[in-house]
Amino acid sequence: MDRDRILLTPGPLTTTLRTKLAMLRDWGSWDADFNAVTARVRASLLKIVHGEQSHVVVPLQGSGTFSVEAAVATVVPRDGHVLVLDNGAYCKRAARLTSLMGRRCTVLPFDESAPVSAAAVERQLAQDASITHVVLVHCETGAGVLNPLPEVALACERRGKGLIVDAMSSFGALPIDAREVRFDALVAASGKCLEGVPGMGFVFLRKAILEGCAGNSQSLAMDLHDQHVYMEKTGQWRFTPPTHVVVALAEAIAQFEAEGGQPARLARYTDNYRTLVDGMGRLGFMPFLDPAVQAPIIVTFHAPGDPRYAFRSFYEAAKAHGFILYPGKLTQIETFRVGCIGAIGRNEMQQAVHAVELALQELGIASGEPAI
Amino acid sequence: MDRDRILLTPGPLTTTLRTKLAMLRDWGSWDADFNAVTARVRASLLKIVHGEQSHVVVPLQGSGTFSVEAAVATVVPRDGHVLVLDNGAYCKRAARLTSLMGRRCTVLPFDESAPVSAAAVERQLAQDASITHVVLVHCETGAGVLNPLPEVALACERRGKGLIVDAMSSFGALPIDAREVRFDALVAASGKCLEGVPGMGFVFLRKAILEGCAGNSQSLAMDLHDQHVYMEKTGQWRFTPPTHVVVALAEAIAQFEAEGGQPARLARYTDNYRTLVDGMGRLGFMPFLDPAVQAPIIVTFHAPGDPRYAFRSFYEAAKAHGFILYPGKLTQIETFRVGCIGAIGRNEMQQAVHAVELALQELGIASGEPAI
Repeated sequence: MDRDRILLTPGPLTTTLRTKLAMLRDWGSWDADFNAVTARVRASLLKIVHGEQSHVVVPLQGSGTFSVEAAVATVVPRDGHVLVLDNGAYCKRAARLTSLMGRRCTVLPFDESAPVSAAAVERQLAQDASITHVVLVHCETGAGVLNPLPEVALACERRGKGLIVDAMSSFGALPIDAREVRFDALVAASGKCLEGVPGMGFVFLRKAILEGCAGNSQSLAMDLHDQHVYMEKTGQWRFTPPTHVVVALAEAIAQFEAEGGQPARLARYTDNYRTLVDGMGRLGFMPFLDPAVQAPIIVTFHAPGDPRYAFRSFYEAAKAHGFILYPGKLTQIETFRVGCIGAIGRNEMQQAVHAVELALQELGIASGEPAI
Repeated sequence: MDRDRILLTPGPLTTTLRTKLAMLRDWGSWDADFNAVTARVRASLLKIVHGEQSHVVVPLQGSGTFSVEAAVATVVPRDGHVLVLDNGAYCKRAARLTSLMGRRCTVLPFDESAPVSAAAVERQLAQDASITHVVLVHCETGAGVLNPLPEVALACERRGKGLIVDAMSSFGALPIDAREVRFDALVAASGKCLEGVPGMGFVFLRKAILEGCAGNSQSLAMDLHDQHVYMEKTGQWRFTPPTHVVVALAEAIAQFEAEGGQPARLARYTDNYRTLVDGMGRLGFMPFLDPAVQAPIIVTFHAPGDPRYAFRSFYEAAKAHGFILYPGKLTQIETFRVGCIGAIGRNEMQQAVHAVELALQELGIASGEPAI
């Protein structure tokens, strides 16, 4: 039996058959028909953040992390100083790539169970005038925390600092309005809440800073300014685009729009999230985060306290029942994660809870209750 | 009428339906089933160059250029000195990305209509002891020249220099044997002669130099040493892989092996090339290169001398008859290019020539003869 499993992972995720069917054609990367797909995708993306007036959007080959690195490399001058707001694994990764490329980097640490504090950011910016840019991860997938983007953006704007937002796992689901929230760069990718397949990212760049970005990047492949200039001139990508991934994203966006755009997607994911947390709660499982700071994207659960529990066997048992879970990413506490995103709804979440129940039974674990 | 056009372009190219059908499933990037696909692809790739003893292979997200940049960033120390052998557009790109990342770079220019000279390389290496690495493009897709990889490799080995080979458009079709030809890094990609879809590259790294590569890269995303260490430890990619592209490549490689591997692929492409050049010759078209230095991958033709010729209208006319041609990349002479690679054979090449004949008729061009 080889029926497809449901991916409860934060990307790659389960996509619709319609999205995947778009990949059954080959496209010339130089051809006008393909350029029209790229143009259509770019226009749709700008509309999602209401950025038509203020921003451009530059697609980039590779995973989302490539686009995060490209955003820092392109936006931050070589003598810039980046403040990374750190409440999780993806923040730490952003700090690491910033330091590696030779940009000065300061990390402002926060607890991974809570959002970063805009007031603390404001204090840090007041204390250290050398900081030129702030990096914020909108939804920290490490634990699943939603960070206060509008408040941090306001602090940056007041202090005249640039803001780079990693919106990888929030874009398309959580509201982001470029008319109200000022950011220099905002990064997301094809295989997340837009429900495309993985293989490309995209970065919104504020038009006002665009010219100043020329020559910042030490990487040719990741130079978003160069990619933008070339794309505006020719309609083409500078280097071979992942054509099948691009057309799948175009098809996924058409379905996103037909569903009702970001508000509809948020409503579906919120329902997925509630169905999951309610059902898992009945089995004894306890979410790691306070619901007040939890984004409805990915939920971290405490591991069961039962000594018969081991993530590997739990994972395999749930997989045998058709669902792919995700390991935890916290360093101190044993957890696992369950994604609420992808082309899935209440049915799949109810079935997922049922699969977890069967997995517990098979492993002889009486309840999902944590040890603490 | 929306029948798929045949891509006579050097990647993306026409792939089989079987390869594309592999993309109709979603895969968890953390799951053992997907890790097994990655492992299988890596083992097959090593076999193609007979590199099982001497090399490892590291896949990387993004287009082929990302992997070229990653190879230079990972293999060349920060105080290294790179000699780029330049006989075309892709050589110039390699030089540009090397300089941009801050590595010292010297360009040794050659005519774009001829192969680079191993003797000239040897002289340059004798003259300048500070050179640590040589970059060679195996098949220069700009004009279509085959460069003398074994001779250049020998010169590098004799002088104790590292060699980085861009084998993007030759890998899988032209013979490369790691047991006979010494290289530190060799780069190729999914969407070329292996006939996968575009979206990932891969780099063969010589085991003997692997440890010394730690910490060279200033880019996190492009650090092939880091990617390799993580992959060996976990079986997983460091950052989200383009799962659908990877499984399509696995399926393409299975067909490559069933066809008879590299010798069979070379035989088919050589037949494609001869069918093309013979047929185009009957229409008056003249190849830009001496056949003795021409790789059977992509052919550059002189543009017709007829004043009614313009590439754009010629391209559109051929496209209307079902074939996507490729623009020329030479700076001084007007040319266009036709690829011989992809899941196509003699039938398609004969039909392509016929499409070109019809295009000429429709444009009122009596012959493909160039002005010169």
